[in-house]
Amino acid sequence: MTSKTPIYEGKAKKLFEGPEPGTLIAHYKDDATAFNNKKRGQIQGKGIINNKISEYLMTRLGEMGVPTHFIRGINMRQQLVRAVDIVPLEIIVRNYAAGSFAERFGAFEGEPLGSPLFEYCLKDDRLGDPFIAEDHIFAFGIADPEEMDEIRHYALRINDFLSGLFYGIGIRLIDLKLEFGRYYEGEYEQIVLADEISPDTCRLWDIATNDKLDKDRFRRDLGGEEDAYREVARRLGVLPSASVVESDVFAGKSPRAGAAKAAKPARKAPAKKTSPIKPKKK
Amino acid sequence: MTSKTPIYEGKAKKLFEGPEPGTLIAHYKDDATAFNNKKRGQIQGKGIINNKISEYLMTRLGEMGVPTHFIRGINMRQQLVRAVDIVPLEIIVRNYAAGSFAERFGAFEGEPLGSPLFEYCLKDDRLGDPFIAEDHIFAFGIADPEEMDEIRHYALRINDFLSGLFYGIGIRLIDLKLEFGRYYEGEYEQIVLADEISPDTCRLWDIATNDKLDKDRFRRDLGGEEDAYREVARRLGVLPSASVVESDVFAGKSPRAGAAKAAKPARKAPAKKTSPIKPKKK
Repeated sequence: MTSKTPIYEGKAKKLFEGPEPGTLIAHYKDDATAFNNKKRGQIQGKGIINNKISEYLMTRLGEMGVPTHFIRGINMRQQLVRAVDIVPLEIIVRNYAAGSFAERFGAFEGEPLGSPLFEYCLKDDRLGDPFIAEDHIFAFGIADPEEMDEIRHYALRINDFLSGLFYGIGIRLIDLKLEFGRYYEGEYEQIVLADEISPDTCRLWDIATNDKLDKDRFRRDLGGEEDAYREVARRLGVLPSASVVESDVFAGKSPRAGAAKAAKPARKAPAKKTSPIKPKKK
Repeated sequence: MTSKTPIYEGKAKKLFEGPEPGTLIAHYKDDATAFNNKKRGQIQGKGIINNKISEYLMTRLGEMGVPTHFIRGINMRQQLVRAVDIVPLEIIVRNYAAGSFAERFGAFEGEPLGSPLFEYCLKDDRLGDPFIAEDHIFAFGIADPEEMDEIRHYALRINDFLSGLFYGIGIRLIDLKLEFGRYYEGEYEQIVLADEISPDTCRLWDIATNDKLDKDRFRRDLGGEEDAYREVARRLGVLPSASVVESDVFAGKSPRAGAAKAAKPARKAPAKKTSPIKPKKK
């Protein structure tokens, strides 16, 4: 599939033309960057892990009625997604203080915020993704109030669902960064979750130890980033606990490893959809 | 604590005067009822399990910024709660068709609904808790539009968080019934989650087997209700896997059993709250 026409190369992903109009192939790389590209490196196997984690989480969110750009997995490093017009905003939802937020406000890393707090950054590498307020978003014509309502609605739902899901596997969702896009079906415009959800875009702390299981290991030179990413995938049940190698052993199924096995065996849908009730399309 | 003045006896709980004004002691019974009290029985140890499950889930929800009536656990069967004016509505959130909904609309049990669907029933045993619409709620003066907006907002957040949390431990949240109350702090009225969240008030299906881990086992004479309730508690890590007996072995701590242990050891807060940031109070 990588023989397809390249469309764009980002910091962590490459995009290729998809098999049908309106689709793209997202190829997840091992490249890691931080501090607006000033720090660069690689995290061995990250592309595979993030591809699988994002596929899994977007599938779960889709089942909950959150529209996403995800269509289906292709292989270990690639997934098929809808081509969308990205709303050039990083939507950050914070449950606990960390990173730039903790610095700006003199808060402690890990300090509970009481309820989810939203922040927006303008997606613009040249400007260093500056922090902006809703007034700027409207003034600059980045999104209109109805779109922002929808984005906030979905961002809160995503944060709540993922906070629960990660809690269930012993991980605290400290914060996360989301991107949304406009997807056009004929005349109809729909806001959908785009980009990825992974340890690159979430802060994930082990609840028992407060160990960081996310990109802060790379940002802050803590080491062990490969193990941390793999541990998240293992607890979600999307990769076996064996070391991640690019072989087709993992391509088909995701056997669950160790402790997770008893609690979370392969999911099956409770029943086939054949009755006349049509799920709402938002 | 049971020497306190009794206030009210419901189907699954007794309420006593609390140690301070504005508080109540909720005592969880083993009594089980279904079909508007037409079917009665007991589920051995249910009161203990539901008390502990509800305490755990309300604590998690409180951390997420969802206000609840829960103050603190007292013992195996009792918890201290805020006295609230109950809004006489059952708020039902459905993710999959089941029970009365499946019957009414000819849907299959377990059929995905695509996104959460809300239903309201008037809490009135004499009338058999009839299904009503928002128009009725306003016409009857049960709640005003602002309160219903708040109730829907929190009900969706609760459903999303719990869907994730249960998914993380291999359980599908099919639907759940919530009750809210008005809590007064001086002049200020706040909508808070009341009643309980437990296998009495949620439909919980094992994801791997579709086994029912909830009150439908009692309603439908499926047997094994004690084991099912205990399994939910065990996966949440709030009771040991040993059989539930009313001893103080469980009173202090909740050691995690078996498979759950590796993934979810005793939680500790990431950091103590000492910086000037005050969590928002909604």
